[in-house]
Amino acid sequence: MNQYLKIDPWKIIEEGFNPDNNRSSESLFSIGNGYMGQRASFEEKYSGDMLQGNYIAGVYFPDPTKVGWWKNGYPEYYARIANNTNWIGIDVAIDNETLDLATCKVNDFTRVLNMQEGYLERSFTATLASGKKLKIESLRFISLVDKEIGAIKYSVTPLNFSNSLMTITPYLDSDVKNESTNYGDTFVATVAEKTEKNAAFITTKTTKHDIHVCTGMSFSITPATSKIEAIKQDKHVAHQITLPTQTDQTVTIYKYAANVTSHDYELEQLLPKCKELSKNAMSKGFDTMLNEQRTAWAEKWQQNDVIIEGDEAMQQGIRFSIFQLAQTFSGKDQRLNVNPKGFTGEKYGATIQWDSESICVPYYLSTAPEAVTKNLLLYRYNHLDKAIKNAAALGYINGAALFPMATVNGDECQNEWEITFEEIHRNGAMAHAIFNYVRYTDDKNYLVDYGLEVLIAIARYWAQRVHFSPAKNQYVIHGVTGPNEYENNINNNWHTNNIACWTMKYAIEVIDYVKQASPEKYSTLSKKLNFKETEESEKWQDIISNMYFPIDKTTGVFLQQEDYLDKEQIMAKDLDPAVRPINQYWSWDRILRSCFIKQADVLQGIYFFMDQFDHETIKKNFDFYEPRTVHESSLSPSTHAILAARLGYTDKTYELLLRSIRLDLDDYNSEVSEGCHITSMAGSWLVIAHGLAGMWVKNGKLTFAPFMLPNWKSYSFKTSFRGCLLNVKITRDSVIIDNESDKAINVVVNDIEHTIDANQMINIRK
Amino acid sequence: MNQYLKIDPWKIIEEGFNPDNNRSSESLFSIGNGYMGQRASFEEKYSGDMLQGNYIAGVYFPDPTKVGWWKNGYPEYYARIANNTNWIGIDVAIDNETLDLATCKVNDFTRVLNMQEGYLERSFTATLASGKKLKIESLRFISLVDKEIGAIKYSVTPLNFSNSLMTITPYLDSDVKNESTNYGDTFVATVAEKTEKNAAFITTKTTKHDIHVCTGMSFSITPATSKIEAIKQDKHVAHQITLPTQTDQTVTIYKYAANVTSHDYELEQLLPKCKELSKNAMSKGFDTMLNEQRTAWAEKWQQNDVIIEGDEAMQQGIRFSIFQLAQTFSGKDQRLNVNPKGFTGEKYGATIQWDSESICVPYYLSTAPEAVTKNLLLYRYNHLDKAIKNAAALGYINGAALFPMATVNGDECQNEWEITFEEIHRNGAMAHAIFNYVRYTDDKNYLVDYGLEVLIAIARYWAQRVHFSPAKNQYVIHGVTGPNEYENNINNNWHTNNIACWTMKYAIEVIDYVKQASPEKYSTLSKKLNFKETEESEKWQDIISNMYFPIDKTTGVFLQQEDYLDKEQIMAKDLDPAVRPINQYWSWDRILRSCFIKQADVLQGIYFFMDQFDHETIKKNFDFYEPRTVHESSLSPSTHAILAARLGYTDKTYELLLRSIRLDLDDYNSEVSEGCHITSMAGSWLVIAHGLAGMWVKNGKLTFAPFMLPNWKSYSFKTSFRGCLLNVKITRDSVIIDNESDKAINVVVNDIEHTIDANQMINIRK
Repeated sequence: MNQYLKIDPWKIIEEGFNPDNNRSSESLFSIGNGYMGQRASFEEKYSGDMLQGNYIAGVYFPDPTKVGWWKNGYPEYYARIANNTNWIGIDVAIDNETLDLATCKVNDFTRVLNMQEGYLERSFTATLASGKKLKIESLRFISLVDKEIGAIKYSVTPLNFSNSLMTITPYLDSDVKNESTNYGDTFVATVAEKTEKNAAFITTKTTKHDIHVCTGMSFSITPATSKIEAIKQDKHVAHQITLPTQTDQTVTIYKYAANVTSHDYELEQLLPKCKELSKNAMSKGFDTMLNEQRTAWAEKWQQNDVIIEGDEAMQQGIRFSIFQLAQTFSGKDQRLNVNPKGFTGEKYGATIQWDSESICVPYYLSTAPEAVTKNLLLYRYNHLDKAIKNAAALGYINGAALFPMATVNGDECQNEWEITFEEIHRNGAMAHAIFNYVRYTDDKNYLVDYGLEVLIAIARYWAQRVHFSPAKNQYVIHGVTGPNEYENNINNNWHTNNIACWTMKYAIEVIDYVKQASPEKYSTLSKKLNFKETEESEKWQDIISNMYFPIDKTTGVFLQQEDYLDKEQIMAKDLDPAVRPINQYWSWDRILRSCFIKQADVLQGIYFFMDQFDHETIKKNFDFYEPRTVHESSLSPSTHAILAARLGYTDKTYELLLRSIRLDLDDYNSEVSEGCHITSMAGSWLVIAHGLAGMWVKNGKLTFAPFMLPNWKSYSFKTSFRGCLLNVKITRDSVIIDNESDKAINVVVNDIEHTIDANQMINIRK
Repeated sequence: MNQYLKIDPWKIIEEGFNPDNNRSSESLFSIGNGYMGQRASFEEKYSGDMLQGNYIAGVYFPDPTKVGWWKNGYPEYYARIANNTNWIGIDVAIDNETLDLATCKVNDFTRVLNMQEGYLERSFTATLASGKKLKIESLRFISLVDKEIGAIKYSVTPLNFSNSLMTITPYLDSDVKNESTNYGDTFVATVAEKTEKNAAFITTKTTKHDIHVCTGMSFSITPATSKIEAIKQDKHVAHQITLPTQTDQTVTIYKYAANVTSHDYELEQLLPKCKELSKNAMSKGFDTMLNEQRTAWAEKWQQNDVIIEGDEAMQQGIRFSIFQLAQTFSGKDQRLNVNPKGFTGEKYGATIQWDSESICVPYYLSTAPEAVTKNLLLYRYNHLDKAIKNAAALGYINGAALFPMATVNGDECQNEWEITFEEIHRNGAMAHAIFNYVRYTDDKNYLVDYGLEVLIAIARYWAQRVHFSPAKNQYVIHGVTGPNEYENNINNNWHTNNIACWTMKYAIEVIDYVKQASPEKYSTLSKKLNFKETEESEKWQDIISNMYFPIDKTTGVFLQQEDYLDKEQIMAKDLDPAVRPINQYWSWDRILRSCFIKQADVLQGIYFFMDQFDHETIKKNFDFYEPRTVHESSLSPSTHAILAARLGYTDKTYELLLRSIRLDLDDYNSEVSEGCHITSMAGSWLVIAHGLAGMWVKNGKLTFAPFMLPNWKSYSFKTSFRGCLLNVKITRDSVIIDNESDKAINVVVNDIEHTIDANQMINIRK
């Protein structure tokens, strides 16, 4: 844990400059708009420890796979988001003495992330070695309105000197490196530099896929000056602006940057488009753009705000979660998905994983137009051919699909055998997302047009992945890694066996539906897939009916895997705090042998299918697994918190929600310097909606079973459902639901159905 | 399989030049002397596919470890034997037209490895593009007598032209690269080049450990000429010799190379020593040196030859095995051990693994002076501190030791978690080697001076590695990889559980012995190790008495691991030959899930403790496991063959022995191009001695229970035992044992004890 930030309902605030926290702050204060983003590094030179990171969604480098012992089926490369041209740089010098926070004295430093209005602010005074004192104020944002534009206002005020020469040098620099690389390769090659009057441009391209990015800047300065010299160097373009100084007279530079890519434009259009956009931005002007930014964010908050009364730490945390998710993913581009680290760091290389389906899909179902979630599903549908090829490379036949563990473009990127080949429950999560989407939206056409094709491919995979155990006289699934990655290559992971059977069952149901709803489309698809319905679905049914599930006969607890009870049973609370997180202190074999669980596994399975389990079953499994869970995955506390809330475990719910909601702000796992955990932030929202408010879709209706934390006065959140937008507020004694849409909706609260007319509110006393 | 070599009892013969076989031949025709060695590349330029490799034992490069997901306890580097200065090079050109077998026409090519006399010969005629025809003959060897010296005789005869200018350019070249590297690093840096009259020198050093090697050459040429120009370039020294040509007049160059290292000499002595040695060699002269070589090899064969009458393929194979082992390891240097690839390739980086104990120790016990095996044991004793540190890094306390899976200097090199941390049966193999050595030699002082210290450290490891299973109410060992590496992270590997208990039991026995034999030394050691005898050995005893062993209750077969019978049971013979070896065709998870076994596992355990198991037990386990074993490890066929012989399975023994003995010559696993399997060659010898002749030590006596293969007339081998050298010959109807030493020995043949007087022979009719 590292708690150095001030609590505030709308802002993230760092006061005082501590270089040891700089990398963490660079992650936490990151800004972005779904299209691009960056870590919160400084505009001026900083020679201390930092990671200057500027990233654009979908611009990645294929980092060659390197392993000691190559296994058949390993991917060719790991896709890493490319650290691209640094466009924030503004060097400042007084009489050739450069401002550098690592070498000068810094006072009154504050760094503020204004989540309400969507910008990053910083101010401080610096005393240079010469004794000259400067006040610096900067404000920058990445526009929600003009997706390719970022803007910076940067002011320098001499505090104790006059008649010196100040040089201000805005620049673009493509001599950048990714920290996260296998071979230390440079991920982007610079293909062109260009300077113009008060503007400059750099074009880069990534290796292999030749994704081109043109980055441009325009700038203006007050007071105006003509002493501006353009500088063009290899991978570096700049303008050196020279001004005389006067005590207390502020010099302000406005820098407008544009980033355009070959994903959106033809190569020859990149430079002209970049010029046009950066100059348009300058014409629009900083204040206008900032106002637009405020308005855009106000609209976002109008759609998505969560208000927690009585708990400012949670309030700040949930807004930080919503803010970072909105910065990471807009849902507008079908080629993109929710990057687990967003634009806040390089870990995981920006690859998309199964948390997209398990956590982000339910979040976006409630908080965004249907089309956004549909895009998340289509992202996988569009990768189905590659998932089939991936399975074929592992020996599967007949159009079976295994979706990748980590991917950017559908190609598998993961290269640990115990994950790549064995963490196959992810394939079930892909199927579950379809089920979840249809349950929530009632968009059954999706099944006809896309869903069934994916479901058949996944069911075909499971049917080949199981085998019949002669000793058990049942089907088993050997050699898997469950969601709990602190076990590898185990047999009969309860969750995997369960979701495998469920997928086959759901596929059979959907086949029946599509056959009825659209016999022609079914027939076409059937032919395309060479689907032998009777034979294949009979096989699936046989597996469903004869699957083995490890269960403790004494207690009825679902066993995470075969032989789990052979382990030494120690509780996480009895672990020496000095060895936590255990992944930073224990050898891997020791972790594997222990009973400690990284993240929800059986409980993840229960959460996926919550309404299939009675209270008693949920309780005995939660009571068994939660004490053994060390929550060293960001995804874990939220799932456990939802179950804890369902069970009415007040303290546990609070503890787990706090851990989820402030995971990065308080750096529970000592790793926020590497970037924030974006996808898990959606989990925090789910705890409030699914866990506390008990919001589920049952029989096509939104239902609530609210639960309140003792120290809270109230909480409220917005949720979309089938064309309605509801504001749901839970107080200590009532449930207030405001239907902000133009049509009526029926909701069920604590098992009683209520009709809420268009634009009406109901207040249900508990 | 690739069978292109001629069968011959004493030679390996390749006739005709096929570039596709060149890399395989470079491995198979390798020469060495334990100190250094090289692949059988050509002296003259070759622009085709090849791996020019010159290696010196113990000269290695620390290749930084690179993994996708770093695990605590991973080693810093993988030690790779450094490809050092190429000293064989002799370029030949006629009127500036270079001889290159990749571009000229080659006729009458033969490459012969003369195992009887210890040299490599080659001859061919080459027709250059110009039509000029040359005959080339070369002979080279690495001296058994002068360990740092290699010598080459290289002759060129113009066949169809005169009055041309021939240039012959002997050179040294340190611009070499290892093929096997993580990052493409160059492993040796050149620190000095020097040329003198008819001599030249290059000094290199490895990164990090600064191991210096000085390589030198001297040469002479007939007919004599004065047209010799020294050439010194970066990493390259040479002498260009120019001669007029006459049809049928042969030009011969004699090249003498010396390689000295900073392991043996002070840095400033390297160059003078190298000069001295290479010039001494030249003074001695090629023919004298070659005669010495013949004599030295004759002595080796006198000590170690195995004669198989009636099976030339096997005869050739076993001599190849003995020859390659002798080329790899001399046993004279305690810092060295038996490198699994010898000097024949770069795979495994020259790291030492557990086959050193399981296969090489029993081989050297019989075929070399006791001191050689003792050196192999001391190699581990000298690394005990590092093994304790290694275990400590994995969380073990109280002086527990885990010996490395792969090492050069005692540091762990392996970096796959499922091997590094889990293939822990190796620790048992270290203990077993001590037991084996003492059983064979009766050198109980070894236990007092070294053995007990190692045994206590290993027993302490096992005592911490087991845990008590509440469900089984017994001790279990979870998360291991057995000898069969086609299973990873399994629970209760029968062999591992067995050897763990055995180690603790043996440690207790040895404690009792040392206490009695040398109470003072015991007391000193006890204090040094802070050994709490009562407490610790009671714990060990408790584990021994309450260890869980997986056993099939129906058949009594020892189960390789927990839940093995849950696998689909398919026999190896039913596998499609097109997917074999399965490790080249199947994904890793599929291999893991299958019942197929890479190499002896339960059977390895039975082999280790053969006299503890009755015929019925051995039979039912062999009958169960052999049909499931795909023998994709070089170590596997020999162990299985020994058991098959013991069971009287004639055909199986023959099949497995042939596979072991001709593994490389016939390239069973399609990988000999990467190098030969040196350690497994010792296994082939063990099949003959332990398997066929049934030679074991029982109650301190050498016992035999001979077995004959149907097509064989006889086989004979030499074996040392407690100061005696015996020649054991088994014919179809008799066992002839010749005691070639000056003291009598009692041996047991088919349960009957016989005395063989000094220098006497007995002939026992069957």
